[in-house]
Order: sequence, then C-alpha cells, then structure tokens
Amino acid sequence: MKPGERLDDLQYQGLRILQQEDGFRFGTDAVLLANFATLHPGDRVADLGSGTGIIALLMAGQEPTAKITAIELQEDMADMARRSVALNGLEDRLDVRCMDLREAPQRLGYNGFDLAVCNPPYSRRGTGPESQQDGRAIARHEVYCTARDVTRAAYGLLRYGGRLAMVYPADRIAQILEACTQERMEPKRLRLVHHSAGRPPILLLVEAVREGKQGLLWLPPLVLYDGQGHYTPEVRAIYHMQEVSDG
Amino acid sequence: MKPGERLDDLQYQGLRILQQEDGFRFGTDAVLLANFATLHPGDRVADLGSGTGIIALLMAGQEPTAKITAIELQEDMADMARRSVALNGLEDRLDVRCMDLREAPQRLGYNGFDLAVCNPPYSRRGTGPESQQDGRAIARHEVYCTARDVTRAAYGLLRYGGRLAMVYPADRIAQILEACTQERMEPKRLRLVHHSAGRPPILLLVEAVREGKQGLLWLPPLVLYDGQGHYTPEVRAIYHMQEVSDG
Repeated sequence: MKPGERLDDLQYQGLRILQQEDGFRFGTDAVLLANFATLHPGDRVADLGSGTGIIALLMAGQEPTAKITAIELQEDMADMARRSVALNGLEDRLDVRCMDLREAPQRLGYNGFDLAVCNPPYSRRGTGPESQQDGRAIARHEVYCTARDVTRAAYGLLRYGGRLAMVYPADRIAQILEACTQERMEPKRLRLVHHSAGRPPILLLVEAVREGKQGLLWLPPLVLYDGQGHYTPEVRAIYHMQEVSDG
Repeated sequence: MKPGERLDDLQYQGLRILQQEDGFRFGTDAVLLANFATLHPGDRVADLGSGTGIIALLMAGQEPTAKITAIELQEDMADMARRSVALNGLEDRLDVRCMDLREAPQRLGYNGFDLAVCNPPYSRRGTGPESQQDGRAIARHEVYCTARDVTRAAYGLLRYGGRLAMVYPADRIAQILEACTQERMEPKRLRLVHHSAGRPPILLLVEAVREGKQGLLWLPPLVLYDGQGHYTPEVRAIYHMQEVSDG
C-alpha cells in the first residue's frame, strides 16, 4: 500500500479494493451499475474507464466465469486497480490495461466482448466546479472523453448483440440516449434512480444493445431511501451482496 | 350534431366537446398534457394535430386571454372541432385550421406562437394493429407525420424561446428527445406518468424550448392510481378542473 491509500473491504465474496484516502472513491452509482448490468456466465467484459476497478471487481465476484478487461487512462489509477486485482488473486481473469478508451477497439481488437460497462465521468466539460486534484477531475468530468466516445468505443469492442450498461446523472438523458443511437447502440433497458419516492430522479441506468432493434423496456423506479431515511428493501438486497465499509 | 356523434360535457368552465360515438375519443393523456404545458396570459398557442380539439378547448378554458390555433389534417375532425368551438362560443380566440401540420409554418407564418402543444399520433408506422377506421388510424399512428415532423413544425411556428409540450408513450423517449434536439428544440422539462407507484412509466410528458440552453429539469413521477385503484390526490386535483363525463 502506498502513502495516501486505504484498503477497503467490499464485504462481498471477500473482495478488497485500494482507493485514495483523499481522492475519488466509488459510490452508490458503481454498485447500482454492477447490479443493473446483465452479466452471463463466460462473458467477456470491458470496463470502460475503470478507475480503481470497483465495477470490474464486483463483476468478477458476481460471475466467477467472466473474463474482465478494465480500461483506465490514468496510470496511477490503473496501478492501484492492478494491485487490488493481485490482492484478490484475480490476475487470471481480470486484466487492467492503461489506455485511452477511444483507442481500446484498435488495441484490444474489434467485436471481442459480450458486455461493456461504464460509470463515466459525470458533468459536461466546463460545467460545475472541477476538482483541484487531477484524479477527481478526470473521474468526475468529461475532460478526456464524451458520452459519444464511450458508445463509439463500446460499438467497436462489442460483438453483434453485445450490451453496454452505463450510469449517468438523470438530467443527461437526452445526450446519453443520443450518444447511443448515433453509434448504433440501441437503448433497450432504462431505469431511473430516485433518492426517495415522489422526488425527481437523480441517476439514469441504461443498457444499450449493439445494432439492437428499436424497442425500449422501462424498469420500475429504483428508490434508494424510504420515508425514514433508511435504505429500501431493494437497495438493502443489492447491498446485501455488495456492502462496503466506508471508513 | 351529426349521426354517430356525441356531445360530452367537460365539466370544466362549462365546456362541451363533440366526439365520434365509435371513433377515437380523448383520454387521460390529453388532460395531463393540457395540465403539464406552461400557459401564460396572452399566449398564442398552436395545437398540432388537434383532433376533435380537446386540448385546444381545455387551454382556452384555462387561460381566457390565450389565442389558440388548432391544426388538424382530417376535414371531418376539423369540422367537429369547429362546431365544438361554436357550441362553446369561443370563435373569437380559438381558430380551427384544416391543414397538414408540416405546412403550418409556411401557411400560418413563422415565429408567431409562444406555445405549441401536441398529443401526437402514437406508435410507429407499421407497428401494432392499425384501426380499421381511418380517423383512429391517423390519430393513433404515425401515418401522416413523425415526431420529427412535429418538432420541425414547432420550431418554425414558435418564436425564439417558445415552448413545445408533448405527450408520448414512455418507451418512445429516445426518439422523442432525438426529434427535439435535432430540430434545436431543447428538452427542458420531463415528467414520467406511472399507472401506480413502483410500476414502470407509461407516458412521457416533455417540454422543449426553441433554441434553449442545455439543462434538463426532471419533475417527480406522476402516479395515476393509489394502492386501492383510486386516483391519487394530484390526479384528482388535475381532474377537479378538467373532469369529463365519459358516457
């Protein structure tokens, strides 16, 4: 463990993850995305912009036969992810590659994946306060890639019929759906995440299928907290498998 | 009243409407849309594809200073709407015009409206069973126009900053938002309508602004029925103003 890092127990399948003490750490969105994505036995999975590798690790835990490639631009993040992989003894089926996701199809090969997941940089470039620390700025903002970059990379990486699962702020829905359809990644499943019932949605979960037919399925709203401020039964069930100790 | 027609009391501001006995009659979606649209005093309003004129009539009732143009392709529908206007004594501020909405900007003038509303033909052309009766087929399906036709017509009719409010099936969201952004009608307000809490949404209400800045506001979900199958308080409040006797 390097100075300024901490080791968190994912309390799921004995998994652990290295994260920066004062940097960007994974949140609810990563856990919800890992739960939302459709993962089949034997799937070849690409995690686009994997950061410290939280989603890749969770998916490795969910499906022991999945082969996962975590793609991360920042060398220090990729390095932490690699060491988390080693700590968990997952080297044989979780490969961390340091590269720009826009180059991923060319470098990793076209049409070789069944599933791509992305918990992408939030907010548009130039909006909102960007963090002083580079790591957070890249993880939170579209500094190095846009939603369109993500859907284009997914199209290149995925086989025909392959799936892309993403989580975004709910107010980006128009841009996200457009980025999908413009790259022939057809939105097939949508789910909105609400802080509590009767409130506007905060997050959008979307699954798009490479060259899928038009036809969208809306899932019921996912409500995080009940009237007393406690997790709802559904969220408890999701976290039952994937609860984290946060400090 | 012609054979096969019926006169319904809107139970709102004393308004009445002529509809076909066995044809397409307005439903909840029209009432929800009239309630959702932002209507200001003195607004010049275009109702695109007005059918028998339900939304135009409701908006005339909501705002006595609004000037409304109802645009309808089918002569028999336009004729019924015109007679409903006369029955309600609204000839001075509700004008029914029989034309293809795609020609409306050219024929009615560019940039002369503050608000456009559209409860458009549902379902894509060639999907689902089309009704035997032409009237219903046109009202329910995109036989004569697409979502893109609607947003293009709205762009032409509206002033800079003018608003377009539409209702669509929720599963059309990707196409509707794309039709908006491609015609520089920026989606600004979204609301999903659910049959009951915890169920997937059934309808999408969207308000787009001509050449608006990016930035979307999600409203809370609109839930129609409570656990006992009764209208929720919000829907009762909407219908309190606009309740209809349906037979």
